[in-house]
Amino acid sequence: MSAEELKKIEKWGRFELELDGPREGNPYREVSLKGKFRRKNREVEVEGFYDGDGSYKLRFTPDRLGKWCYETISDREELDGRWGKFRCVEPSEGNHGPVRVEDKVHFAYADGSPYYPVGTTCYAWIHQKESLQEETLEELKESPFNKIRSCVFPKHYAFNKNEPLYHPFQKGEGEERDFSRPNPEFFRHLEEQVERLGELGIQLDLILFHPYDRWGYAEMGKEADDRYLRYVVARLNSYHNVWWSLANEYDLLEEKSTADWDRFFKIIQENDPVGHLRSIHNCREFYDHNKPWVTHLSVQSQDKFDVTDWREEYGKPVVVDECGYEGNNGYGWGSLPPKELIRRLWKVATTGGFPAAHGETYLDPDDVLWWSKGGKLKGESPKRIAFLREIFERAPAKLKPCALGGWDASAAGIEEDFYLLYFGIDQPARKELDLPSGHRYEIEVIDTWGMTVDPLGGEFSGSVELGLPGKPYQALRITRV
Amino acid sequence: MSAEELKKIEKWGRFELELDGPREGNPYREVSLKGKFRRKNREVEVEGFYDGDGSYKLRFTPDRLGKWCYETISDREELDGRWGKFRCVEPSEGNHGPVRVEDKVHFAYADGSPYYPVGTTCYAWIHQKESLQEETLEELKESPFNKIRSCVFPKHYAFNKNEPLYHPFQKGEGEERDFSRPNPEFFRHLEEQVERLGELGIQLDLILFHPYDRWGYAEMGKEADDRYLRYVVARLNSYHNVWWSLANEYDLLEEKSTADWDRFFKIIQENDPVGHLRSIHNCREFYDHNKPWVTHLSVQSQDKFDVTDWREEYGKPVVVDECGYEGNNGYGWGSLPPKELIRRLWKVATTGGFPAAHGETYLDPDDVLWWSKGGKLKGESPKRIAFLREIFERAPAKLKPCALGGWDASAAGIEEDFYLLYFGIDQPARKELDLPSGHRYEIEVIDTWGMTVDPLGGEFSGSVELGLPGKPYQALRITRV
Repeated sequence: MSAEELKKIEKWGRFELELDGPREGNPYREVSLKGKFRRKNREVEVEGFYDGDGSYKLRFTPDRLGKWCYETISDREELDGRWGKFRCVEPSEGNHGPVRVEDKVHFAYADGSPYYPVGTTCYAWIHQKESLQEETLEELKESPFNKIRSCVFPKHYAFNKNEPLYHPFQKGEGEERDFSRPNPEFFRHLEEQVERLGELGIQLDLILFHPYDRWGYAEMGKEADDRYLRYVVARLNSYHNVWWSLANEYDLLEEKSTADWDRFFKIIQENDPVGHLRSIHNCREFYDHNKPWVTHLSVQSQDKFDVTDWREEYGKPVVVDECGYEGNNGYGWGSLPPKELIRRLWKVATTGGFPAAHGETYLDPDDVLWWSKGGKLKGESPKRIAFLREIFERAPAKLKPCALGGWDASAAGIEEDFYLLYFGIDQPARKELDLPSGHRYEIEVIDTWGMTVDPLGGEFSGSVELGLPGKPYQALRITRV
Repeated sequence: MSAEELKKIEKWGRFELELDGPREGNPYREVSLKGKFRRKNREVEVEGFYDGDGSYKLRFTPDRLGKWCYETISDREELDGRWGKFRCVEPSEGNHGPVRVEDKVHFAYADGSPYYPVGTTCYAWIHQKESLQEETLEELKESPFNKIRSCVFPKHYAFNKNEPLYHPFQKGEGEERDFSRPNPEFFRHLEEQVERLGELGIQLDLILFHPYDRWGYAEMGKEADDRYLRYVVARLNSYHNVWWSLANEYDLLEEKSTADWDRFFKIIQENDPVGHLRSIHNCREFYDHNKPWVTHLSVQSQDKFDVTDWREEYGKPVVVDECGYEGNNGYGWGSLPPKELIRRLWKVATTGGFPAAHGETYLDPDDVLWWSKGGKLKGESPKRIAFLREIFERAPAKLKPCALGGWDASAAGIEEDFYLLYFGIDQPARKELDLPSGHRYEIEVIDTWGMTVDPLGGEFSGSVELGLPGKPYQALRITRV
């Protein structure tokens, strides 16, 4: 077959090989299948997986243009020694590849385009009825969010007592789940939703474990945990918009030790040739984010926002993805007024972190709270988050925390060139600033709640005293002329 | 002379003996004068002071009813060996004596009546022109405050560049002050204002040192510092409404060491037979409030309100007397919206501390900012502070931090009997509570900003789920039936 006739797979797209194989016994754990993918001196090994009904699959994401060949390795003759070729071609428009850490504390897509995470949280939306999932996707399409946090496992918690649409594992004896038999129907559904999120430009921060459980998923045991992780990685690592979030509130999963989390990270790292982002989300105490397998911080904090210190201490991007949700559900983590959520997000963004912590927890007659089930956004924060995103995406990439604002105004910027100062709850009617000498600046007052940008007019240099509107939630954008 | 003819001095009132003495040299430092006051087996020694123009004074506050006698001791013949008697009689109405620590972490007047500090801050009001001081006193009269923080020394700082009405020390060579010669005119004026505050029921937290200085008061040297303290204590310890605040922002007085502060505390302790309250106010780091001469914490914090921990750690009353002021002056410490100040004060009050941190810093065309110069109150917080004071003064005395509210609502109360829960910025529309078993309770919703109290109606017991208004700044008052 000539080069022209080779199957074409776009860069950061997905090659999939489907093979027929044994159905007897428990193919999920009794059959091994791997693929070796080669391009010149680059060789990548991936695990395959059993998709039920005698179907075995190998998925692979090529990250270099040109001709790739592959062969399969299996302990079953019918799956072993299969080989073939394909050609990796330019990615289609809108496919920027997976998100990477860039310059230690920032993010970018694999093709180099900047990525500024602005995220929301719907823990169990993929477990709700189809029509609700459609509503959620419809809502996400119109939303400012380019990241979402969601769990593989269903959730048992306040306002979340319903059974899932599909279970990630098949039914076993009695009411128990069989943790040696994943449910392909669930995973095909998950993959479809991952793909649809991808089409909306949304990264899925996929939560692999969480403590809010009545089915046993939080306590499957080491062997089942490890096999589950390999299965998920084999199925999903070829989706460009997946991030691995090892847990929601890992420190509440009392059955698991630090050694378990370390091992989980390593399993993912070894089995994911794409190197998707890896993090672990705390309730109270941080996991040691210095460990080499952690790509970025995934922080819950309801009161402390020492983002600049964390960024310094760990030398990694700081994503604050939980800081209290907009709502009124009667819990401290779910009763924030929208102004307070927006304040926290701006604070995070102007101290060198990423404000990916939206969620809504308004009481609902049908218990459809966005933070868990999706549905409709009801809050006042999303449009202000769109405004925040616009401000930060128009700013130069790779802002750093700056001292320009003094102790009482946080600031992120590019020294001498550009600054975003934020005053939070304060209502200053004036501000003294020492602008870097030798340059002239234009200054705009941003009302982060009112979503307006007003130039102060003229140019400023040296030590200045600015007149300000004297109301809360103001920021300044200072741009070198 | 018969018992009936003895001069009558009310308990916690002031006995004063005036004597003529030498004028030559520097009587402030060259003449010693003491008084011994005796009643049965109680003997109290106090220092006298020179009041200028050949006048020497001894002041003493009797704290036991009945006949007291005294004699003077001096190194000058004309001041030595004078003696006399007076009778200590019941205090007049409204004289409750000095405020003391009560039950480790609370306050009460010497006569046992409860004292709940609700304070404001006017650092340099006694240094402004007379008409402005009158305005300040007029305003205080209508205010909710029963405590004020003010400095002995004038202040040099933003919005505070004017010369003081009177200097605490006399003019020396050239432009320098002579730190060996206090200015009696200043102190007589200070005493008059202390007395007038006393008539308004206001405790004066008198700040003895502070860093904002252009006259040399912050760096007088050890000898002058010590003499100054003895002079102030000799003059003022007989005023029942004085508290000794060793410093405002002691940690910014770089010339003084911990050993200096320790020594200052000891000098005051040794020379003040009344035992007025003693504290030291921080900018950043706390002084070690465990030291035995510290009677209570005087805390500045702009962001951290670990009041319950501090109360536990030091076992002393926690007075938060600076947490940012209501205003718009462009500094983080002086640009709080009134809602945020009120939130902080309620937070302090419902975690076991005392909310004595009012101050106003609105820009003014004449630079008359209440926080420093007094004048008119312009803010929206004072009437909410009056409301807070009313709520807490009506509550049982000696509230303790309680766990009833969970991590997400602070609570102070008397276990099983009474609770005040506070939700802060949160806007819960419901709240689950486990009320102590075996009792019935009435519950009222307090809008701490709107200043309303609405009964939920009926009685509650055991585990309850309450419907709430779903707006910020709500509290609950829970009273056992």
